[in-house]
Amino acid sequence: MLSTKYDAIRAVIWAEMGVQFLDQRRLPEEETYQVATRASEVAEAITKMVVRGAPAIGIAAAYGVVLAARARFSESSLSWRQLIEADLCALAAARPTAVNLFWALARMRSRIKDLPDNVDPEAVLLAEAQSIHLEDIEANYQMSKLGAALIEGSANVLTHCNTGSLATGGFGTALGVIRHAYSKGQIKKVFADETRPWLQGARLTAWELMRDQIPTVLIADSVAPYLLGQGQIQWVIIGADRIAANGDTANKIGSYSLALAARHHGVRFMVVAPTSTIDWSLSSGSEIPIEQRPQEEILTLAGKAVAMPGTEVYNPAFDVTPADLIDALVTEKGVILQPNSNRMKTLLA
Amino acid sequence: MLSTKYDAIRAVIWAEMGVQFLDQRRLPEEETYQVATRASEVAEAITKMVVRGAPAIGIAAAYGVVLAARARFSESSLSWRQLIEADLCALAAARPTAVNLFWALARMRSRIKDLPDNVDPEAVLLAEAQSIHLEDIEANYQMSKLGAALIEGSANVLTHCNTGSLATGGFGTALGVIRHAYSKGQIKKVFADETRPWLQGARLTAWELMRDQIPTVLIADSVAPYLLGQGQIQWVIIGADRIAANGDTANKIGSYSLALAARHHGVRFMVVAPTSTIDWSLSSGSEIPIEQRPQEEILTLAGKAVAMPGTEVYNPAFDVTPADLIDALVTEKGVILQPNSNRMKTLLA
Repeated sequence: MLSTKYDAIRAVIWAEMGVQFLDQRRLPEEETYQVATRASEVAEAITKMVVRGAPAIGIAAAYGVVLAARARFSESSLSWRQLIEADLCALAAARPTAVNLFWALARMRSRIKDLPDNVDPEAVLLAEAQSIHLEDIEANYQMSKLGAALIEGSANVLTHCNTGSLATGGFGTALGVIRHAYSKGQIKKVFADETRPWLQGARLTAWELMRDQIPTVLIADSVAPYLLGQGQIQWVIIGADRIAANGDTANKIGSYSLALAARHHGVRFMVVAPTSTIDWSLSSGSEIPIEQRPQEEILTLAGKAVAMPGTEVYNPAFDVTPADLIDALVTEKGVILQPNSNRMKTLLA
Repeated sequence: MLSTKYDAIRAVIWAEMGVQFLDQRRLPEEETYQVATRASEVAEAITKMVVRGAPAIGIAAAYGVVLAARARFSESSLSWRQLIEADLCALAAARPTAVNLFWALARMRSRIKDLPDNVDPEAVLLAEAQSIHLEDIEANYQMSKLGAALIEGSANVLTHCNTGSLATGGFGTALGVIRHAYSKGQIKKVFADETRPWLQGARLTAWELMRDQIPTVLIADSVAPYLLGQGQIQWVIIGADRIAANGDTANKIGSYSLALAARHHGVRFMVVAPTSTIDWSLSSGSEIPIEQRPQEEILTLAGKAVAMPGTEVYNPAFDVTPADLIDALVTEKGVILQPNSNRMKTLLA
């Protein structure tokens, strides 16, 4: 364990009966778990954001495939590999932007392809899902060291959305770097955007940081550019939901605003994501599909109307930050400074 | 009336017994009025944002002085002008950033100075407060024409916070320009930032625009820079709470983020404010005091905790947009393009 203070939080836990999710919609008020025993329940948990965060939904989907295989094999030991296609499809349709979901499903599908007929596939597929999970945690630790090494002296940093244990297998991407750098005395204070409309920053990031006793200041999203102009912040550190082959990065809506303001004020901008977040099939960020979320997320707060019913809403969940606004892309395979198509290719080696 | 569709909303209404405020904290759910019969109640209504918006709080404070004079004159017809100083002080302390408050109090104080002893001051002071109110509405109409004249063709515009009838004597500053331009067929659609933490955009601006049947799209604040990058918006149009002599403009937190993104994407940026919003005593925006609001505005939503109690919060209500990011400053005395100290002086003529 890198940080002695780190108190392991797990968003996704495999149990014999199924997969448990710490219900992130109820945090920080309640720490309750939902259990999914069927693949369709896993897909629903992803769509409804019981579990969220690009790496975490990849892991959730992998366990969903294990549950699907269990059900389909018991339905027909001969044709389960044909039947499971519907489940893979449903899991893939749960959310459109984060590519880790498709990456994890592709890994599971590849194992399914190699399995013989008539042999219970659960053990092999569970081992694969657990590998995906453990490799993600390992990647987080690796990235946390690589990212922290970029921070000089004792810095204030700003982060957006939640990229911690709750968003990953455990530990975190951007928040993993922050955890590690703090444990090394490299960070004084973390400014956390509340991150509308889901308030992942207020509900999840501030909660994780306070559990770790890392000094945290919560701000409304639109405060960040003003704060960056005051010269108090040295690094903006965020995660990613999908990265194109040229380094363009889709992440939680609001990331682009931070990138623009950071560049304007000479504040450095770090993206932390495992290579499973890179979509090599897309040459630029303009090809990344951006999820549109329901208008209720903007029209209501805690079940109460905050705008007239019928008001039109535009509610994209993500935006795209062009690679030329990114100073460092930190992956478990290494750091790419000023990413572009050529430099990104070193990650394929 | 410029817009035939415009259905007059009044945030502040003088009545014999006192001043009525449409309680803006309860909109759009409830249209309820609070009545203030004493200056201290007016000050509290301003602090607690029952009434808000730079011009509206100036008007509210002017009526507060009328109530103060009524009470102080009945207390002592000889020394009321000495006693009322405490009320002027309390009203001035209600909120620190919007200069219209101090401007209106200075106008009322100047009338008080000229009044004879032993003569009931109410009629004279009420006439002055009503002049402040009516002049503000007239200024809004004037600005609405000047601002609309800057918009070419049929534009989409983006606005922040609420600058409509609710924020002014009536009609609006930025929203007045939008109302007038829409009535002339110059605007297709208005994108309204929800404006955290008070959600004035969701609760008030969308409500005003929908009453006027102006097509409105509500967005989370952090969507705006991404939207500006998509080339759909021609103008960002905002109000102001205090403008320094060089054109630097304090306005609702988030305005600076819009100005940065607008400039980056070649979208034009318009500030609409009466000359009462200009503080000629400040040479630049760095001298403008920025109000810090209570942390509960960020830690709770509709009375429910959204972050761990005890989380530190930084909650500035305003930020400062430097003049060089402003394409046009629209006042009732004329338009200043690319404002700077020299060009601003033409407003003093």
